[in-house]
Amino acid sequence: MRNLTMMTDLYQLTMMNGYLVSGAADNTAVFDVFFRHKGQINYAVSAGLEQAIEYINDLRFDAADIEYLQALHLFDERFIDYLRNFRFTGDIYAVREGEIVFPGEPILTVKAPLIEAQLIETALLNIISHQTLIATKASRIVRAADGKKVVEFGLRRAQGPDAGIYGSRASIIGGCNGTSNVLASQMFSLDPKGTHSHSWVMSFPTELEAFEKFAEIYPDNCLLLVDTYDTLRSGVPNAIKVFDKLRAAGHEPVGIRLDSGDLAYLSKKARKMLDAAGYPNAVIFATNDIDEELLDALNVQGAKIDVYGVGTKLITSDGMPSLGAVYKLAEITRNGKAEPTMKFSDSSEKITNPGYKTLYRIYSADTGKAFADLIALRGEKIDKPLTLTHETDRWKTTTLEDYEIKELLVPIFLNGKQVYECPTLEACAQYSRDELDRFWEEYKRLRYPHIYKVDLSDRLYRLKQKLLKERTEYCNGL
Amino acid sequence: MRNLTMMTDLYQLTMMNGYLVSGAADNTAVFDVFFRHKGQINYAVSAGLEQAIEYINDLRFDAADIEYLQALHLFDERFIDYLRNFRFTGDIYAVREGEIVFPGEPILTVKAPLIEAQLIETALLNIISHQTLIATKASRIVRAADGKKVVEFGLRRAQGPDAGIYGSRASIIGGCNGTSNVLASQMFSLDPKGTHSHSWVMSFPTELEAFEKFAEIYPDNCLLLVDTYDTLRSGVPNAIKVFDKLRAAGHEPVGIRLDSGDLAYLSKKARKMLDAAGYPNAVIFATNDIDEELLDALNVQGAKIDVYGVGTKLITSDGMPSLGAVYKLAEITRNGKAEPTMKFSDSSEKITNPGYKTLYRIYSADTGKAFADLIALRGEKIDKPLTLTHETDRWKTTTLEDYEIKELLVPIFLNGKQVYECPTLEACAQYSRDELDRFWEEYKRLRYPHIYKVDLSDRLYRLKQKLLKERTEYCNGL
Repeated sequence: MRNLTMMTDLYQLTMMNGYLVSGAADNTAVFDVFFRHKGQINYAVSAGLEQAIEYINDLRFDAADIEYLQALHLFDERFIDYLRNFRFTGDIYAVREGEIVFPGEPILTVKAPLIEAQLIETALLNIISHQTLIATKASRIVRAADGKKVVEFGLRRAQGPDAGIYGSRASIIGGCNGTSNVLASQMFSLDPKGTHSHSWVMSFPTELEAFEKFAEIYPDNCLLLVDTYDTLRSGVPNAIKVFDKLRAAGHEPVGIRLDSGDLAYLSKKARKMLDAAGYPNAVIFATNDIDEELLDALNVQGAKIDVYGVGTKLITSDGMPSLGAVYKLAEITRNGKAEPTMKFSDSSEKITNPGYKTLYRIYSADTGKAFADLIALRGEKIDKPLTLTHETDRWKTTTLEDYEIKELLVPIFLNGKQVYECPTLEACAQYSRDELDRFWEEYKRLRYPHIYKVDLSDRLYRLKQKLLKERTEYCNGL
Repeated sequence: MRNLTMMTDLYQLTMMNGYLVSGAADNTAVFDVFFRHKGQINYAVSAGLEQAIEYINDLRFDAADIEYLQALHLFDERFIDYLRNFRFTGDIYAVREGEIVFPGEPILTVKAPLIEAQLIETALLNIISHQTLIATKASRIVRAADGKKVVEFGLRRAQGPDAGIYGSRASIIGGCNGTSNVLASQMFSLDPKGTHSHSWVMSFPTELEAFEKFAEIYPDNCLLLVDTYDTLRSGVPNAIKVFDKLRAAGHEPVGIRLDSGDLAYLSKKARKMLDAAGYPNAVIFATNDIDEELLDALNVQGAKIDVYGVGTKLITSDGMPSLGAVYKLAEITRNGKAEPTMKFSDSSEKITNPGYKTLYRIYSADTGKAFADLIALRGEKIDKPLTLTHETDRWKTTTLEDYEIKELLVPIFLNGKQVYECPTLEACAQYSRDELDRFWEEYKRLRYPHIYKVDLSDRLYRLKQKLLKERTEYCNGL
């Protein structure tokens, strides 16, 4: 990833200059990254931390950047001088890549001098929320594919090069089995996937010649795209002719790919034709505007598809192209005193959680399954037995005598130094699969999932209520 | 932009290797880029050509790439050797950036040795279709803003860094007046925009102190965000207090920004408060999930907003996050003979146009307005008078005695050499505004626009019918 220090919104720089000039630059600030409830999404799969870490490690303004900013004539010379030696010196806690996370939970927390914490908002949100969005979409699609393999094919339809490259990466974390993207495969040590397109077929005088030539060159990797002219009348029969030749020469074909028409109907017909011709092991690969909704419909109709290639709708997270993650000030230390802060709003779900916090996951001791998440103030002691109370429906309480607890926010940077070692991409994907297994199916349904409990600790709840009361009194007094 | 040579789908490389081994590599191929009709989009604003040109000029596989590809054990050694010296040697024609284009029209045409043309499909589609998508969304939003300024604020919500950076660029081509993105501003010579966020206000003990400090540091650039605590009871009254001090010190305030709540109601109330306090020139800036639909609703309700900051929904093209552009083989030269090719489909709108083509725009001589576009075979003579015929409704014909004609596809590369000089971003935006002015309002409506005529020349129509007939006969004979 190239240097993205300048990839920020102008107002971050105008505020930083303001903090410096007004003497507030070194006040310690705590910011939380989280996303709000959106659409049918219940859980999300966190991703992008490795690139966020690279971004933080690479932070520095070069001479050209300094010159450009100076020429805007917006900033004090002291600020320009400050930028020349800018480094991140704070702490960052974040959930692991592949972690299952829920709306309202802090998934990354920055504690740093206000001036530093302000700069990094834009890039952190961009990187983390993009990859988390795509990993989440991938997870939904992979679940809907119900055990069939899913390969990411979206590069050409992605919103620019990075969306293709890091979208590929995120898809793997979300559970995809591979990608067609050669650059992403090179960068993240994956085996790229893919065989041929319509243009291969169209560049030969006939479909049969095109198939024959392909089989000759790739005898052990022969997957043929059968819909260029007519799937059932031309494509599949020609593929079978070529498979017969292949087998006679001692090779087994891989299978066929469908890329248009009704995939349920065509796959069932093609399956019968392949079986009748003696190719029960030839796979049927399907592509064409696939997402979790179409997969669900294809499953219901008993489509005979073994592998799905998923493009546009995965790589753009069609239907929800942004996670809408935010970065909100939760605490500020002024004159040595830490003050919790909140963003108020008339809609309760837009009110933020104040204070320097952490996030726990509570697993039932008997089933080993995730029971609830708990947002607590950092340093709070979590008791056994533990009583959990719903934030707004206060009568909803549960007491757990015995449980397993895991802190989900782990230290990534301390005093500006990276203290976290990034696992391999495969390890992130494995972690995510294992964690997802610890959730009951009810929470993972595509539509109308059961809402997973995310509660506030008692101390955090009381702090929030106190600040809300103060604010109401202040506004009523105006 | 970094080197993106490896940013391709694996199947492009497997096909290229196949072409080389089978002796078809040097057959000259013609590929067209176009998009299909989608949603409420009538016209699109073309963008991304400059980055596509950089990509083509930078094409080369370095030693690490070669080593990576070799280790996949998929390719013939002759192919690996070929890649070591890979350069693009073909021709590319494309529409200018900012050009108004329609579904089905070739917006970029590649004529090159088949092996070269195949490699570049993925990256060309990625780059051109992303920027065209965002320029188009920007154009719709700017039109809905009805003369009010629109600033692009989406970086944090973009699908990765490039989506933010090049999405910013495309927004400017589509008509936005600026961006908050500092890196994009630096790269494309723009003035970045923005003042402060909620965290500025929250980092001070009170809103009033935060506003006072901001006014002190930026006396001539004082735009205050008024919704951190309570817009009408706290934010606007505090802003007015600070504006009074500013004015007493000889400065005029810029205005206020609204970022939540009902923007129609709040803007009308705030406008009255500002006017009553003596600030009729203070602007009201609004942000918060704005797109063309919300703008339309705000206009109807007489919202008093002077400038819109548009983020998530612009930068992700919410509602249509992909243009779905394709790259289809239109002609292949085998044994010295050029053969037109087509992708067939049961749905007529998915059938492609065969042959090596170009694209004309016909303007009425009397009004100067665009009358119709004409897709023709390259080298065809366009007559005067000119009879245009609808592709499927053959009874719909019009004859133009006098007209102005412009060829929209211009040469970009000839024999691998760049022959086109990219205009500045500002010139692209100006070109787009001028061209859009040459279309009747009926074609530019947000919803249910009148469909603009895109016709085929007679020769192209006859060629297409002939190929369709041959294919039908072939399939019926199976």
